[in-house]
Amino acid sequence: MIVVLKPDATPNDMEYIIEKIKEWGFEVHISKGKERTIIGIIGDERLIKEKPLNIFRGVEQVLPILKPYKLVSREFQHEGTKIKIGDVMIGGNEIVIMAGPCSVESEEQVLEIAKEVKEAGAKVFRGGAFKPRTSPYSFQGLGIEGLKILDVVRKEIGLIIVTEIMDVRDVETFIEYADIIQVGARNMQNFNLLKELGTIDKPVLLKRGMASTLEELFMSAEYIAKGGNKNIILCERGIRTFNTYLRNTPDLSAIPIIHKETHLPCVFDPSHSLGTWEFVEPMSMAAVACGVDGLLIEVHNCPEEALCDGSQSLKPRRFKRLIENLKKIALCMERKI
Amino acid sequence: MIVVLKPDATPNDMEYIIEKIKEWGFEVHISKGKERTIIGIIGDERLIKEKPLNIFRGVEQVLPILKPYKLVSREFQHEGTKIKIGDVMIGGNEIVIMAGPCSVESEEQVLEIAKEVKEAGAKVFRGGAFKPRTSPYSFQGLGIEGLKILDVVRKEIGLIIVTEIMDVRDVETFIEYADIIQVGARNMQNFNLLKELGTIDKPVLLKRGMASTLEELFMSAEYIAKGGNKNIILCERGIRTFNTYLRNTPDLSAIPIIHKETHLPCVFDPSHSLGTWEFVEPMSMAAVACGVDGLLIEVHNCPEEALCDGSQSLKPRRFKRLIENLKKIALCMERKI
Amino acid sequence: MIVVLKPDATPNDMEYIIEKIKEWGFEVHISKGKERTIIGIIGDERLIKEKPLNIFRGVEQVLPILKPYKLVSREFQHEGTKIKIGDVMIGGNEIVIMAGPCSVESEEQVLEIAKEVKEAGAKVFRGGAFKPRTSPYSFQGLGIEGLKILDVVRKEIGLIIVTEIMDVRDVETFIEYADIIQVGARNMQNFNLLKELGTIDKPVLLKRGMASTLEELFMSAEYIAKGGNKNIILCERGIRTFNTYLRNTPDLSAIPIIHKETHLPCVFDPSHSLGTWEFVEPMSMAAVACGVDGLLIEVHNCPEEALCDGSQSLKPRRFKRLIENLKKIALCMERKI
Amino acid sequence: MIVVLKPDATPNDMEYIIEKIKEWGFEVHISKGKERTIIGIIGDERLIKEKPLNIFRGVEQVLPILKPYKLVSREFQHEGTKIKIGDVMIGGNEIVIMAGPCSVESEEQVLEIAKEVKEAGAKVFRGGAFKPRTSPYSFQGLGIEGLKILDVVRKEIGLIIVTEIMDVRDVETFIEYADIIQVGARNMQNFNLLKELGTIDKPVLLKRGMASTLEELFMSAEYIAKGGNKNIILCERGIRTFNTYLRNTPDLSAIPIIHKETHLPCVFDPSHSLGTWEFVEPMSMAAVACGVDGLLIEVHNCPEEALCDGSQSLKPRRFKRLIENLKKIALCMERKI
Repeated sequence: MIVVLKPDATPNDMEYIIEKIKEWGFEVHISKGKERTIIGIIGDERLIKEKPLNIFRGVEQVLPILKPYKLVSREFQHEGTKIKIGDVMIGGNEIVIMAGPCSVESEEQVLEIAKEVKEAGAKVFRGGAFKPRTSPYSFQGLGIEGLKILDVVRKEIGLIIVTEIMDVRDVETFIEYADIIQVGARNMQNFNLLKELGTIDKPVLLKRGMASTLEELFMSAEYIAKGGNKNIILCERGIRTFNTYLRNTPDLSAIPIIHKETHLPCVFDPSHSLGTWEFVEPMSMAAVACGVDGLLIEVHNCPEEALCDGSQSLKPRRFKRLIENLKKIALCMERKI
Repeated sequence: MIVVLKPDATPNDMEYIIEKIKEWGFEVHISKGKERTIIGIIGDERLIKEKPLNIFRGVEQVLPILKPYKLVSREFQHEGTKIKIGDVMIGGNEIVIMAGPCSVESEEQVLEIAKEVKEAGAKVFRGGAFKPRTSPYSFQGLGIEGLKILDVVRKEIGLIIVTEIMDVRDVETFIEYADIIQVGARNMQNFNLLKELGTIDKPVLLKRGMASTLEELFMSAEYIAKGGNKNIILCERGIRTFNTYLRNTPDLSAIPIIHKETHLPCVFDPSHSLGTWEFVEPMSMAAVACGVDGLLIEVHNCPEEALCDGSQSLKPRRFKRLIENLKKIALCMERKI
Repeated sequence: MIVVLKPDATPNDMEYIIEKIKEWGFEVHISKGKERTIIGIIGDERLIKEKPLNIFRGVEQVLPILKPYKLVSREFQHEGTKIKIGDVMIGGNEIVIMAGPCSVESEEQVLEIAKEVKEAGAKVFRGGAFKPRTSPYSFQGLGIEGLKILDVVRKEIGLIIVTEIMDVRDVETFIEYADIIQVGARNMQNFNLLKELGTIDKPVLLKRGMASTLEELFMSAEYIAKGGNKNIILCERGIRTFNTYLRNTPDLSAIPIIHKETHLPCVFDPSHSLGTWEFVEPMSMAAVACGVDGLLIEVHNCPEEALCDGSQSLKPRRFKRLIENLKKIALCMERKI
Repeated sequence: MIVVLKPDATPNDMEYIIEKIKEWGFEVHISKGKERTIIGIIGDERLIKEKPLNIFRGVEQVLPILKPYKLVSREFQHEGTKIKIGDVMIGGNEIVIMAGPCSVESEEQVLEIAKEVKEAGAKVFRGGAFKPRTSPYSFQGLGIEGLKILDVVRKEIGLIIVTEIMDVRDVETFIEYADIIQVGARNMQNFNLLKELGTIDKPVLLKRGMASTLEELFMSAEYIAKGGNKNIILCERGIRTFNTYLRNTPDLSAIPIIHKETHLPCVFDPSHSLGTWEFVEPMSMAAVACGVDGLLIEVHNCPEEALCDGSQSLKPRRFKRLIENLKKIALCMERKI
């Protein structure tokens, strides 16, 4: 950490700051420039960061030198994390397709869609049993009943299940029914939930909050990793900008940045990002072309009748065609789907 | 709700849409304009909204006519909600000052600050026992121990207590220790927590998420109101913008908008919005001048030693001076502090 | 256009509004719903839009039905615009690579880079003679001298020239020296410049303002088209968000949206969007995979010595490799580079 | 400026960097921390900033120490700039009210409004002759004819004139007709216009771009100051955020920040920021309460018939009442209107 002094800081100001820093157990290194004097603090930056040095008399600004995340950083672990669930590997050479309806509506619906997406090439089935809805008047999901229906898909169709947890009290239940526990964008900073998920070893798919910086996303992953659970998948799902044409603005640049800064696999959810099915294809193509490790795509056999987010669901036929096109791009990337 | 048809929509497209709308139990009203035909849907818009009409063949766009919130709207209840806690009234003529440290550190600290802020004019004491921190390496609060210390303030100093809940499992505990339960910005869309808080009658101070529209804030309040709890206070605490000079950009325009659109009291938290003490005074002055019902201000007897957010805390002396200045502005508004 | 009345609008309010609308030469169509009455206005929406109907007594909101742009819209011209310059076609099957240094520094530098990028597959040479710089202390470009150097490239190397105009007084000069006149992000709403460019027939490459909605971009293109110049290329170059990791956030979703809403070709500038060379490759790959018609890429033979934006420039060797990779993706899209 | 080296930077990398820095004429100061080595560069930071040090091998990041603006900074000139125009002083104890219609429509209209606003307490008359409009189909202003009408106001009513310039070719004309030349938000980074305005001594009212950081605003002011014109007034007029309730989000925190960082007077334009008259009063009150030096308020005698932005104009009667209320707040601030 570096403390920049104001041009009118007095020697007394400086002495007091240095004294305090030493009192806290750190070393200092002074450098007098032409227009400013700076104090370099030597020691564990994560500890010194908690101190409000910027309000000390004579301080102009405080500049951190290190990234605040550690366990999830590429610096900490150079090799990319690979997560194996059954015979599927996330973070490996294969780009994993996760598909299914926004919400679980009935066993019949879910089984029909599951067969279709499996046949098209999906390895993971997605479907919400608990739904975070902006309005209390919207369909809130089937709850535990929905989880049981997903379990049928797992057993009968042989797909891996990813589904969203909304309540810290449901962790035990999700360990039983889900293969990957999804934390939604609105819960990315529900720290108590993250802490609980850190104590288990079930893979967690952590969605970026819609107004979260990547650093904040990494810090939330760090909460889980600090608890001991290293099976974390990061998911870009669009950010909130001034742009109102789409529900959210997909931030594809997050994909190569996540790969540079962390060792975690990165997937992309075009459906929730866009809020409309019609750009799901080009955005999925783009995501594969910039290195994504997986895609979460909403598929519904009858979007017009969907209880939730029908507008963003692909029909099975279109989904199959998309997968065919994605395979070609994957090949250019020397990867497979 | 209004459905705008594409210029090339066929009569068949239109018939099918109308048939569906009627099937769902609504009436239609057709209007052919010069460049577009529109279908007005007559019936409860909150129900029709769930239908993905925008993906029907021939539909260009779907425009809602009504606001999605109801119970919290000024249209539903014209008179402003007043919340009485002990002898303090929030939403009345008095502008209520809520002050205290960011986090509860020790009984001694808290009692000392509580005396100071009470003397200066604060009616409510704020202090976090459970702290939502971006980093898992930051101080996480004293937890239940902190709540007990706040209880001492309540009993010995006679201040009302507002403190933040982070976990849906803690609702019972907060009913015991808090007079106002605060829901932080990061939990504004923790819908299960909102639902639980809807079932009790303890006042809830609901902070706007840092990237939430006001409509989303109102919908979150609607979750609580729908459960039966009408004692809701809305809190502006700054939004995330491209602006990096401050931690968040205080959105003071939210204050008159909240008063226009809802009947709920509205308070402002300059300390968390700004992240630095030095603009707390002008922003508090501005908030009072545009009609705020209360302020949450961080005060610490020794900000340099604070375990959390010392940078944004006022010292007691400065806080007193601020209250004196705020009183003058309040007087211009024909209100008092 | 649709006028939604307040629930408490009186018959007098409604009559007055209708009378005014008719006075302005439009027809009305009334529709009484369950909770609101709406007035549909029949006539040319672009004319009625100028009237401040929303402040009339009894009006709750006014909803436009039509898009505000016309000449550039896909509705107006279904087939995509193709712009032919020499033997290069922009908007056709070929994805056109435009490459070169951020700024023209010397004839020697420019000729060397031009040879390299031509050999690698670029058809258009980019290079700034006039540079918009945030700081008055930064290098401002060689000016007219720079344009003359570009002219040498045109003649000696046989590349088409795209370069940025900053001043409405320079239009004549640019007609002489540039093959495509670039309007930078900061001038996207310099309406007088747009009007001048509408009167000529030289192709214009119009960059999206860094905080402009796509609708605003289309309206700026409409200014040029309205003047008679239909040779417009739209360029996405990143938008301003809360995200500070990169200079701007590339908004790749703009590419398919531009193609849906307008008939104009769309190119992408990864270099200025990102501000750093290291993600230029993945973002270029992604852009091609979602349908872009061209790319503007900064290439410098010695980025360490560049007078401007060296950080975002690729070295020629890396640029060549990138083009090879882009060709593969283009092939998947049934296009060529 | 500080260069932070990567943990795996080699001694050779470091030597090369140091050599280059010295070659450019600067001194270095090395500091080895626990986890990183940093190189402090001693010399004029504005010069070193142009060098792309961040792409040198072994460099992790480059941190600037100084603010990039100088002439407009409070550090450069401690005392606030006061601008005297006739008998009005901007930046002094008086809060200066600038009022008038969005656009000049006719001599009759303008004279009527001018009388009203003068009587209410305005000292400056605002009105657009040249109008920057998003749509080419909107009213574009009366042009030079409008300037002549404003001249009548100046002579007959005795108000100072502020009006917006849109074209660098009009500077001479504006020197003749305007007392204060306004640069609109869309031209804040029209650097050639700024440079021209730097060569004259007429006061310039520089509006913040709707997506400009304050640092960028200060840099644009620096362009004018560097040319020799020190008569600069900064104007906050709302920023673009995800918030769609209002046209723009007024950023009142800009007011105290501008006063802290620069010595320039700061005014606020609630009308353009909000886009609707109904919150002009609370936002104006708030601006005065946090230290603004002036307000630009739109007033129209018949907003329903305004050719431009009628929705945001106050009627004269309401404007008078607002001024009365503002006077009370000003008094609390020990200022006058």
